[in-house]
Amino acid sequence: MSKLPLISIDSSGCGQSRVKLTSPTKLPNATGFLWNRAMVMQVNCRGYVNSQFMQPEPAKYSHAPNMEAKSFIQPEHSYFSHHPGRFFYLKDEESGEIISLPYEPMRVELDKFSFELGNSDITWSIEHSGLKISIKVNLTKDDLVECWFFSLCNLAETTRNISIYPYFSIGYMSWMNQSANYNEVLNAIIADSVTPYQKVDDYFKNQQLKDKTFFVSDTVPTAWHTNQKVFEGEGGLHQPSALQAERLGNVEARYETPVAVMQFKQKLLPNERKTYQFLFGPAKDEAEIAAIKVKYLGHQQRNATEVSYEKYIADGKACLRINSDNVAFDCLFNHWLPRQMFYHGDVNRLSTDPQTRNYIQDNMGMAFIDAKVTRQAYILAVSQQSISGAMPEGVLLHESAELKYINQVPHADHGVWLPICLAVYLNETADISLLSEMISFADSKEKQLFSKHIELALDYLINATDDRGLSFIEQGDWCDPMNMVGYQGKGISTWLSLATAYALTCWCDLCDEYGVTITCQKYDEYRCAAQAINLAVNENLWHGQWFARGITDEGRVFGTDKDLEGKIFLNPQSWAMLSGAANEQQKVAIITAITRELTTPQGVMMLAPSYTSMVEDIGRITQKHPGVSENGSVYNHAVIFYVYALYQARENNLAFDLLSKMLPSLENAEVTGQLPIYVPNYYRGAYHQFPKQAGRSSHLFNTGTISWLYRCLVEELCGLKGCANGLKISPKMPTRLNKLSGQRLFRGAIINFDIELVSNIVSEEILLDRRVIVGNVLKNLQAGQSYQLKVRVPPHA
Amino acid sequence: MSKLPLISIDSSGCGQSRVKLTSPTKLPNATGFLWNRAMVMQVNCRGYVNSQFMQPEPAKYSHAPNMEAKSFIQPEHSYFSHHPGRFFYLKDEESGEIISLPYEPMRVELDKFSFELGNSDITWSIEHSGLKISIKVNLTKDDLVECWFFSLCNLAETTRNISIYPYFSIGYMSWMNQSANYNEVLNAIIADSVTPYQKVDDYFKNQQLKDKTFFVSDTVPTAWHTNQKVFEGEGGLHQPSALQAERLGNVEARYETPVAVMQFKQKLLPNERKTYQFLFGPAKDEAEIAAIKVKYLGHQQRNATEVSYEKYIADGKACLRINSDNVAFDCLFNHWLPRQMFYHGDVNRLSTDPQTRNYIQDNMGMAFIDAKVTRQAYILAVSQQSISGAMPEGVLLHESAELKYINQVPHADHGVWLPICLAVYLNETADISLLSEMISFADSKEKQLFSKHIELALDYLINATDDRGLSFIEQGDWCDPMNMVGYQGKGISTWLSLATAYALTCWCDLCDEYGVTITCQKYDEYRCAAQAINLAVNENLWHGQWFARGITDEGRVFGTDKDLEGKIFLNPQSWAMLSGAANEQQKVAIITAITRELTTPQGVMMLAPSYTSMVEDIGRITQKHPGVSENGSVYNHAVIFYVYALYQARENNLAFDLLSKMLPSLENAEVTGQLPIYVPNYYRGAYHQFPKQAGRSSHLFNTGTISWLYRCLVEELCGLKGCANGLKISPKMPTRLNKLSGQRLFRGAIINFDIELVSNIVSEEILLDRRVIVGNVLKNLQAGQSYQLKVRVPPHA
Repeated sequence: MSKLPLISIDSSGCGQSRVKLTSPTKLPNATGFLWNRAMVMQVNCRGYVNSQFMQPEPAKYSHAPNMEAKSFIQPEHSYFSHHPGRFFYLKDEESGEIISLPYEPMRVELDKFSFELGNSDITWSIEHSGLKISIKVNLTKDDLVECWFFSLCNLAETTRNISIYPYFSIGYMSWMNQSANYNEVLNAIIADSVTPYQKVDDYFKNQQLKDKTFFVSDTVPTAWHTNQKVFEGEGGLHQPSALQAERLGNVEARYETPVAVMQFKQKLLPNERKTYQFLFGPAKDEAEIAAIKVKYLGHQQRNATEVSYEKYIADGKACLRINSDNVAFDCLFNHWLPRQMFYHGDVNRLSTDPQTRNYIQDNMGMAFIDAKVTRQAYILAVSQQSISGAMPEGVLLHESAELKYINQVPHADHGVWLPICLAVYLNETADISLLSEMISFADSKEKQLFSKHIELALDYLINATDDRGLSFIEQGDWCDPMNMVGYQGKGISTWLSLATAYALTCWCDLCDEYGVTITCQKYDEYRCAAQAINLAVNENLWHGQWFARGITDEGRVFGTDKDLEGKIFLNPQSWAMLSGAANEQQKVAIITAITRELTTPQGVMMLAPSYTSMVEDIGRITQKHPGVSENGSVYNHAVIFYVYALYQARENNLAFDLLSKMLPSLENAEVTGQLPIYVPNYYRGAYHQFPKQAGRSSHLFNTGTISWLYRCLVEELCGLKGCANGLKISPKMPTRLNKLSGQRLFRGAIINFDIELVSNIVSEEILLDRRVIVGNVLKNLQAGQSYQLKVRVPPHA
Repeated sequence: MSKLPLISIDSSGCGQSRVKLTSPTKLPNATGFLWNRAMVMQVNCRGYVNSQFMQPEPAKYSHAPNMEAKSFIQPEHSYFSHHPGRFFYLKDEESGEIISLPYEPMRVELDKFSFELGNSDITWSIEHSGLKISIKVNLTKDDLVECWFFSLCNLAETTRNISIYPYFSIGYMSWMNQSANYNEVLNAIIADSVTPYQKVDDYFKNQQLKDKTFFVSDTVPTAWHTNQKVFEGEGGLHQPSALQAERLGNVEARYETPVAVMQFKQKLLPNERKTYQFLFGPAKDEAEIAAIKVKYLGHQQRNATEVSYEKYIADGKACLRINSDNVAFDCLFNHWLPRQMFYHGDVNRLSTDPQTRNYIQDNMGMAFIDAKVTRQAYILAVSQQSISGAMPEGVLLHESAELKYINQVPHADHGVWLPICLAVYLNETADISLLSEMISFADSKEKQLFSKHIELALDYLINATDDRGLSFIEQGDWCDPMNMVGYQGKGISTWLSLATAYALTCWCDLCDEYGVTITCQKYDEYRCAAQAINLAVNENLWHGQWFARGITDEGRVFGTDKDLEGKIFLNPQSWAMLSGAANEQQKVAIITAITRELTTPQGVMMLAPSYTSMVEDIGRITQKHPGVSENGSVYNHAVIFYVYALYQARENNLAFDLLSKMLPSLENAEVTGQLPIYVPNYYRGAYHQFPKQAGRSSHLFNTGTISWLYRCLVEELCGLKGCANGLKISPKMPTRLNKLSGQRLFRGAIINFDIELVSNIVSEEILLDRRVIVGNVLKNLQAGQSYQLKVRVPPHA
């Protein structure tokens, strides 16, 4: 292979970015992802694909070769040769040479390889033996279909005879019924199945399921094959027996594992280029396939689709564009993180019952993109609150949705998120009308003000405390698998106590800032309660250098230096800084301890040392693999809380340092194994225990991290934060970043800004359209108008 | 490869049989199976293995590479390259040539290949490039461990340097925690995992789970590898990258898919032979592994284990040995079918909640092997009866067992089986004491006679009928997926009506034969009820040439020549013959129709034509793939009912013809795809619709067929059937079998018999120890004594 840089980033000014990977083997797990409101596909650089759609629960149309478990999405997904994929075999009819593209399953070294992730497409550009191949996939804005485009160009001086064989996995669909055949009318391979069930009720529930998988081509194939086992033969996927023959055998699958393979025999003159379009996806019946075909097959249709899908993704444009002279950094913040944030907010992780905490935080991010969505989401969330004040485990988005998996376990923290996250919505919009919406409850038709819902949630939290005033943890808090600290009803959570104090403070601050109607008595009660909690935490949980993580049902304080494993947890420290429980001395001690005990090259671990065996009064977290997920990974959601807390403490350098470490980059790609197009939910931790795996990405792009990361960028680093009467300017520039410019969209106004770190000044200097601003709030900004903002910031502002 | 016969059968006189397959590619799905009371392994000729153990629910220790669904066992299991297996890579250190044994995953053509299934072992004998390799596996009588023996012999004149690499799949164990490492003390690779769960209660339930997988060797390895992905590398399983190095890298797996690979560098002098022992299985902790190692590793231990496991399997010896001059036929009946019958009866299909109908029928077979087991099983079954008379959906064998899968759907037939199957127990033992056992109920502590339990079941059945006296089908009868005929409470089942009549008749016949205490009133009531049902069936369901299958909730009669699909069903015809509903004329019509509509080279289809789309008033059966399972396969359980009915009608030739077609044989192996060591639950049907797949075996050895097949052999073909006062002699020899000899064990007596078909006599002639017997019952047979029985039978006896 030619010596191109392993990864490169192209950025156009117009809101597009492309990331290119030039090897299929260096980052074998590298993926990109495309989605719309009904489906998502994660595409691996080697041609493997994970895809699912909603009907309304997640379902598959391209399966593994065995009966797969239904599960929530898992980290560090593993690929194997029969993993679902979209492959293209190419046979040179003269030499007999066969290769597979983009790389799997034959794994032939290619002359040139490039895996390119755009905002709304994923493309491979390949050259091999005088052929230039381009493979591109995008989705559509609304439908359940993968749109594939394949082009082949003869670079040589001679005519070439090539057979092209797209091989699209369909896999083990159903033990009840699975088959596949070629449909001449539709020029499609159609696989049929019946979703397995046993109870009569399920027959009626399943009637609308899309149990067919189709593969439509714009070109009539020379021949076709739908029988995976027969196609593969003794040759194996890496040298399928069926490709030895001149023509595929037109073989159907009859209660046999289906696959979609077509053969296109193609003569290519010198410099001739041929193109093919393929559509792949699930459908209920042939009429649906026919409609999809009409809508999406053809060059005009393809162009229209690309434009409309690009536009859909572009809807995820957020309120800030920056220019820091670091292309990779800017690309992430200008393109990829808003895109990831939009994914979370627009489709709610393609779940019908997102966890309440995720739903509220994901929608906090959406306030930076489209605050109307946030408003609706927050109203929906409180409409599912109990009249007792308890927030639900998950928010049901569909009338037939049910609480599943972890949402069947009681967690104590769901009430804290709305008071905390609401600030972003109000900061972006100043829409206090939300607070006076009248909304009913899950268990009562009584309607109450939105603000009353928040107070009920806070009251519920205040009451869910023990004699000392510490919050019961039940079977978990933000940390789901910390499920046995308090399952007997006594154990408490330091983090949740602090989060409660912080939520109370946030709410009182919002009341102050936005003039929310609240009785003085209630206001004072909340301020006092927050102080009392901070005091109680200090009395019971400060252990010399940091805060413990909690107290078990049996009264054991854990997360202190008495513990050999799980000695220090990140969250209680971050939130003690946020809640005000930590005084200045304690902050110094905490930051020192975290730096010493938790820091790794990829960020800060969530706890250390990772547990290596079950601790029965802590729970399931201790059974997870050391360094993975909550058991001491660099769990970015926890890291970003810490970063946010550091910003509140004006630890600008450390905050920026950790924020930067969190970002996937060209430099850390070979450690993380992923491309710089999303922030994963974790990097492996247990850095001292298992250094070899440390830093590896989970490759999971579902994470509560993003909205907080973006909040840190907008409100903290750039310091362009909304308030009741305007935009408050307070950048928190780190020493190593002395200039930052960009554009902030705020309540309809367009603010072009230049921020400069200046060493010889002592206080911020703000110029708006060359006029000096007194104070640091830009008032009376007019929607539709553009402004020039210049900010000069002293170090350690 | 040398030209050996594809399959051969060796039979020693002493109760052993071996079946050999000499190609890994001709019957790629051919398997054998080994089991004990705690585990089962199905071993494919190419090295793939399906294995599971009970703790007490089924669990795995060798997984696929992705998260597999938990399911009941599925037909036509499909293999793929990363399917769990036990492979051995062999590298010639001089030439660098690498092969894999027994065949997968490299699929190199071997000089000689033989896959050999013994009663208690599975062995491959292979020769390649001057090396002779033997690979053997057996289980132990009681423990959870696969015992592997590998021997390598240098046939050449030169010294060979070989590396041997056993590769045992461990696979995707858990998303919570999975890892693997080499344990020097145990000389073992040990993979650790935590069975995934989310609820606290499950932590306590899971505490005893065996979450480790071990691979112990008797030889210290040169090097080892436990990381599947790294081992495979870019080379793929067919050419693993790790084998390119001189030594494996001693690589651990840390939240990575584990595998057990060891390398043994071995110098082999001319004619030198080296042997290795490996133990593979699940364990809770290292102490368990250490104990297993002490117990089973070492040559002495191996020999002892083989003997004890052989003895365990030999416990499955049944009451009959035959000699028909057809070695394959005799081997099946003397070795393989008793073995399969023993598997069903001894371990109840490794389920904790066998369906009641399966449990009762499987234990009917056990009466031919060890009637004490049958007795206990029947007592257990009725102890779970409701006081209403309803038999349960499944029999719970373990205190923590629950009704799962299909057992959560209400079926109407569970009451018929005990009165029908009890006859075999009584015929074999004459133990009428069973009938006076006092037994309580699932929902009442009240105790009632065993015979009263049967009457309650019959009364319940009699009452579960409509105005016409036809049996409601609820959500299914024997045919599980016929679930929408009567789910609204009105639809009826012809088969169940007839089965009820037959059960009533069987019970009255038993009362007559064994002098069971029953009131005259009850007796008459049952006889009348049976007649009434037969009459009602004739009035409502006879449709000119055959009986319909039922009447739907809406009153539609189905299974008649008005239907385009599902025109004729086998079961109503067979059971009309059994119940007496069919008169002589009808029998002729029925047999003619079955022969015309349902017969295929592999037997009789369960229905025809197979449904090709959903019929909403019939149900799930119509959604299964045509020709598969209940939707018109040659479903052997239904076929054997027909054969049994034919024997009752003295259709000896047709009965024997169909019985023979059911048996897997050397002749049909390339159609069925399986070896002649078990009768599968079905062969593909839909013979006229999908001829290409027709005849293919399901490869499922769980089937209710076996006990009836054996009953047909003992009581009908050989006609050596127990009765109240002795052994009734009434062979039903087909014209094409004119001699049959063998040994019948009966109530402790040993009867060596010779049966001869003689054309010029008109009635049976019976000689016992050369004395003429008057009548056809051998009375006063003494336990422990041997007898010589000679029977001369006229044609069409």
